[in-house]
Amino acid sequence: MSKVEEFNDYRQKMNDKILSENNKVIKRIFNIDTNTYVDGALDAKTKELMGLVASAVLRCDDCIKYHLEAVYKMGVTREQMMESMAVSTLVGGSIVIPHLRRAYEYWEELEQSTIDK
Amino acid sequence: MSKVEEFNDYRQKMNDKILSENNKVIKRIFNIDTNTYVDGALDAKTKELMGLVASAVLRCDDCIKYHLEAVYKMGVTREQMMESMAVSTLVGGSIVIPHLRRAYEYWEELEQSTIDK
Amino acid sequence: MSKVEEFNDYRQKMNDKILSENNKVIKRIFNIDTNTYVDGALDAKTKELMGLVASAVLRCDDCIKYHLEAVYKMGVTREQMMESMAVSTLVGGSIVIPHLRRAYEYWEELEQSTIDK
Amino acid sequence: MSKVEEFNDYRQKMNDKILSENNKVIKRIFNIDTNTYVDGALDAKTKELMGLVASAVLRCDDCIKYHLEAVYKMGVTREQMMESMAVSTLVGGSIVIPHLRRAYEYWEELEQSTIDK
Amino acid sequence: MSKVEEFNDYRQKMNDKILSENNKVIKRIFNIDTNTYVDGALDAKTKELMGLVASAVLRCDDCIKYHLEAVYKMGVTREQMMESMAVSTLVGGSIVIPHLRRAYEYWEELEQSTIDK
Amino acid sequence: MSKVEEFNDYRQKMNDKILSENNKVIKRIFNIDTNTYVDGALDAKTKELMGLVASAVLRCDDCIKYHLEAVYKMGVTREQMMESMAVSTLVGGSIVIPHLRRAYEYWEELEQSTIDK
Repeated sequence: MSKVEEFNDYRQKMNDKILSENNKVIKRIFNIDTNTYVDGALDAKTKELMGLVASAVLRCDDCIKYHLEAVYKMGVTREQMMESMAVSTLVGGSIVIPHLRRAYEYWEELEQSTIDK
Repeated sequence: MSKVEEFNDYRQKMNDKILSENNKVIKRIFNIDTNTYVDGALDAKTKELMGLVASAVLRCDDCIKYHLEAVYKMGVTREQMMESMAVSTLVGGSIVIPHLRRAYEYWEELEQSTIDK
Repeated sequence: MSKVEEFNDYRQKMNDKILSENNKVIKRIFNIDTNTYVDGALDAKTKELMGLVASAVLRCDDCIKYHLEAVYKMGVTREQMMESMAVSTLVGGSIVIPHLRRAYEYWEELEQSTIDK
Repeated sequence: MSKVEEFNDYRQKMNDKILSENNKVIKRIFNIDTNTYVDGALDAKTKELMGLVASAVLRCDDCIKYHLEAVYKMGVTREQMMESMAVSTLVGGSIVIPHLRRAYEYWEELEQSTIDK
Repeated sequence: MSKVEEFNDYRQKMNDKILSENNKVIKRIFNIDTNTYVDGALDAKTKELMGLVASAVLRCDDCIKYHLEAVYKMGVTREQMMESMAVSTLVGGSIVIPHLRRAYEYWEELEQSTIDK
Repeated sequence: MSKVEEFNDYRQKMNDKILSENNKVIKRIFNIDTNTYVDGALDAKTKELMGLVASAVLRCDDCIKYHLEAVYKMGVTREQMMESMAVSTLVGGSIVIPHLRRAYEYWEELEQSTIDK
């Protein structure tokens, strides 16, 4: 199983468990989360890229991975991903760099997982 | 060895080493840490739950684990734990969700470790 | 007009404007915000105190004021408020102290605004 | 003098003083800052919106103002600004809301300052 | 009254009130705070500069002011202060810049308040 | 391969890949990063220690490791490292403690890796 699949499997398994608890607040936040990154006055791709930048400056590796996969599937190029991470590293500072390394590694895994299929 | 024991063993081993350095400031912070979550105008359980929420919004997995174990031992229910994490996720945003997943997993490990005994 | 009224008036005025924009995501987050701090497996007072602690460690003065007023109206004592801020200062560190000063000042204003009525 | 002018005047005055100190690291960071939000694989508008989102989730009012003005001048609509702030509030949590209020107020001032001219 | 005196007066007045509450945890944190920035394996000046950098990357204006005054009185030069802020801006990112502007302004006030005496 | 070598190898490998992308903003931030921790009005050792403190309060384990190795090679003693971490833990709060544990562990690995050679 690739690292991409591993990440998604764990994410899905735990989300299912959490949602089965029927905590209304959490269920609604998960629901909004799904309905935010959609076409509107700004297109879905721009919003997912914003989600990536927000995740990067807040230094949340799992959030970065999630948005990386989303934008990768939407056809964002490596150059565009790098420019998004550049904005993040400028605004968030050199402490973003370790997350940039892991983001870059995950991007390679996304590319690899597509080739493998 | 369960993940709960592993976490506690590492924590204890490193704390012992750190305290043996005799750095006064660190020793005193560790000492306050022990003496904060006690009954007072608010009871210890409420304070430990506050510690959990503070750890969750600051997204510190090890701190979350520590407070999860404390409240678990004090008889906090799964539903109460979920409501605490719901406040944390609302205030701290969707970047708290990956920590919620790991918190939920650790809670299961706490339940399992009790059954195993 | 007291500082408490000033804060609430500005807050209400801007919230009304923001909600009138009909952004679905924002409206739903505001809606969840209202429905989180209610009685459940944990009582509303405990959740508002958690909201206070979360706001304090994330160092959001306006959020602190909002939860201070909520817990003040629920009958939380000064001693209980101080213990909540103590947990926050321990977990969040000495950078929380300037926010503790402003929190304490706002608590005095809440007490004064009640006396004045 | 409008609040927009006031903000820009203070910003410019202090930047000039800081740059006159000839600290190489700071000068170069300021220089990169100017050269990041330009057309590339992503257009300048998208990058400025990313700067806005990054500033919002990191809760930096002055940074928010700066990027609001930039995107306002580039023709970003109120609806697009609101969608950017919606992503920020979802990812960053309810603690972003006080900054959303001030952002909205500043957007009104930007609109007003244009009408006044 | 200068801005430096104003800041110190407010700080002192609120600290006195807070300490009079006799919350043990808070009193002990205040006490450690006083006893950390002292000569040891590292000298007090280095520690105060570290306090400045920590405050800057955590973007706490009041904490920055406090440490600026401490290092100013210890004879730290403007160039050394700028180098400390440069490390902070590199590590913490461009969101530190608004705090750098206010730090620089406060440094000027410290210089002015000395001249005035 | 020791944990120190492992960390450095991964870091170097990923940095090389990232820099090969030729993103100007990122290349320049990496370049500044290299040129900040040098002798100036403050010496390089003081700046690296500041980098350590900034990394610790922002809770970036990889950044902490990087600066720990730098100061270790510059002859910083264990006692001085502990005093730097003490300032960090005071300013950043008890959530810094898990990072202190990992920092201490890495310091031991640095000492061990020197003995092994």
